[in-house]
Amino acid sequence: MNALLFDGDLKYREDHPVPQPGKDEALIRVTYAGICNTDIEITKGYLGFKGIPGHEFVGIVEKCDDRKLKGKRVTGEINIGCNTCSYCRDHLYNHCPKRSVLGILAKDGVFAEYITLPLKNLHELPDSVSDEEAVFIEPLAAAYEILEQVSISSSDKVCVLGDGKMGLLIGQVLSTTECNLIVVGKHPEKLSILDELGINTKLSPHRKEKEFDIVVDCTGSRTGMETALGIVKPRGKIIIKTTAAKKSQLDLNDIVINELSLIGSRCGPFLPAIKSIASRDIDLFSLISEVFKLKDGLKAFESARKKGVLKVILKI
Amino acid sequence: MNALLFDGDLKYREDHPVPQPGKDEALIRVTYAGICNTDIEITKGYLGFKGIPGHEFVGIVEKCDDRKLKGKRVTGEINIGCNTCSYCRDHLYNHCPKRSVLGILAKDGVFAEYITLPLKNLHELPDSVSDEEAVFIEPLAAAYEILEQVSISSSDKVCVLGDGKMGLLIGQVLSTTECNLIVVGKHPEKLSILDELGINTKLSPHRKEKEFDIVVDCTGSRTGMETALGIVKPRGKIIIKTTAAKKSQLDLNDIVINELSLIGSRCGPFLPAIKSIASRDIDLFSLISEVFKLKDGLKAFESARKKGVLKVILKI
Repeated sequence: MNALLFDGDLKYREDHPVPQPGKDEALIRVTYAGICNTDIEITKGYLGFKGIPGHEFVGIVEKCDDRKLKGKRVTGEINIGCNTCSYCRDHLYNHCPKRSVLGILAKDGVFAEYITLPLKNLHELPDSVSDEEAVFIEPLAAAYEILEQVSISSSDKVCVLGDGKMGLLIGQVLSTTECNLIVVGKHPEKLSILDELGINTKLSPHRKEKEFDIVVDCTGSRTGMETALGIVKPRGKIIIKTTAAKKSQLDLNDIVINELSLIGSRCGPFLPAIKSIASRDIDLFSLISEVFKLKDGLKAFESARKKGVLKVILKI
Repeated sequence: MNALLFDGDLKYREDHPVPQPGKDEALIRVTYAGICNTDIEITKGYLGFKGIPGHEFVGIVEKCDDRKLKGKRVTGEINIGCNTCSYCRDHLYNHCPKRSVLGILAKDGVFAEYITLPLKNLHELPDSVSDEEAVFIEPLAAAYEILEQVSISSSDKVCVLGDGKMGLLIGQVLSTTECNLIVVGKHPEKLSILDELGINTKLSPHRKEKEFDIVVDCTGSRTGMETALGIVKPRGKIIIKTTAAKKSQLDLNDIVINELSLIGSRCGPFLPAIKSIASRDIDLFSLISEVFKLKDGLKAFESARKKGVLKVILKI
């Protein structure tokens, strides 16, 4: 099959073997896939992954034991647990110490014509969710994870730091809570997407005043946490979405004296993400920068790496 | 009056003026006071405080407008808010940006014959709480703050790092939740205090296995957080009681990928602390190393600075 393979370099291959579904797995023909910052990091050596990257996708179930699923349009959760540890028993497959992760850890991903995934990872998609929107379900679920972790009320002052893809998704998700929200970024053209949706935005630098009950750091930069600590109120919460390659210098005194909570946030629930797209709560089309064919995958990665570019999609 | 004064050096003075209570304040004759690590840090220049240090105390109300309080034995909360900001309106005086703090920030403390405090800061003490125990109420309240911040169930595996005064108090407080608790420290003689109370202890280094739902860092050391990150489970919580003078290098990736919560924890509620002493839930006598007279205050500080010494008390 055709696939993008990373083995130190990213290359397009036409002769990659089609994966074979194991027990309780489906073979899925991928139709669309999204390029995420993690994929770009992987091509720089992040996590030491080798294989086919990619984890945002929509596709058609070609082969599986469950007849009802055959031929259905699906997306899938990306963590595959051992099914026996305490995390798996609590359905927290994303924390299973023996997990594999689609296109990220010990499992070939979606920049290919075919993938396999356990049946229980799959979500059938309603017709009201387009293929292009469906590739956003995984990152949108990661945005919804915040609402699983902290309760946000309409009286809360909330600041999202960062206007990359994740910042724009989180801005939209948090705006559904009707909290007092502002998204702070560095790119007027990206912030304008939220402006048009009626979401408050501001070009950084942000005024350093401790005024926010909740700050979400999705800057992707090591300075994000520093900014967050400068603007969060005593007893406030900082949600960390940024994974920065190097260690950060952190003033723990500030965290203790102001009794702050720092909360790491990663993968999230697919169902509210799918529901919010189906009910038109979230606008995703304005986040698509370009669509490439799989065979132009290297060009697609080049485009995705450029500053100012938002979601790049591969049509498989 | 007699007092210990810090003005760059700590000195004993016999001619310090008696403070005058303002409106809604009481004049209190201090009878016993405890030396806390913060007091020791203050004598090294921490927070730039100058004046009379000390904030752990018991005393007798000598003068106030509330007749019922006159002559009563009391201790007092140490944060004095502006009474107008949003924090003060929520009774979070310890986060008022204009607060003063007894013996720590812009307010003379308890290593003296007399102090003043707002009436609403005072707690009358039941006869079943001795004077020596009463000086522990403030730090014990700080230990109880943890139970205000996180819910701990009997199924939780909890590790307290540190066997200083705070670690020994927190160990006792958390053991009341009947969680699966261990206190890890470096001093067999300190840990033996908890052993005798039936609380599990272990000499560090701790096995680095991610096995704890909740880790409390009260090591007072910059390496405490590193240890905590090595032993907390994914989705686990780290309560930070340590205020270390320098910034810490922290791997935020670990926090994000494992979706950890880091929670700063400071002053706490006095009522459960008083209640737990009155009902004999907490043993404090074994934490007292020595009692000095106020005029021997410099010697008392010398003793309190020594390794292995727990609570040093001043009889005023």
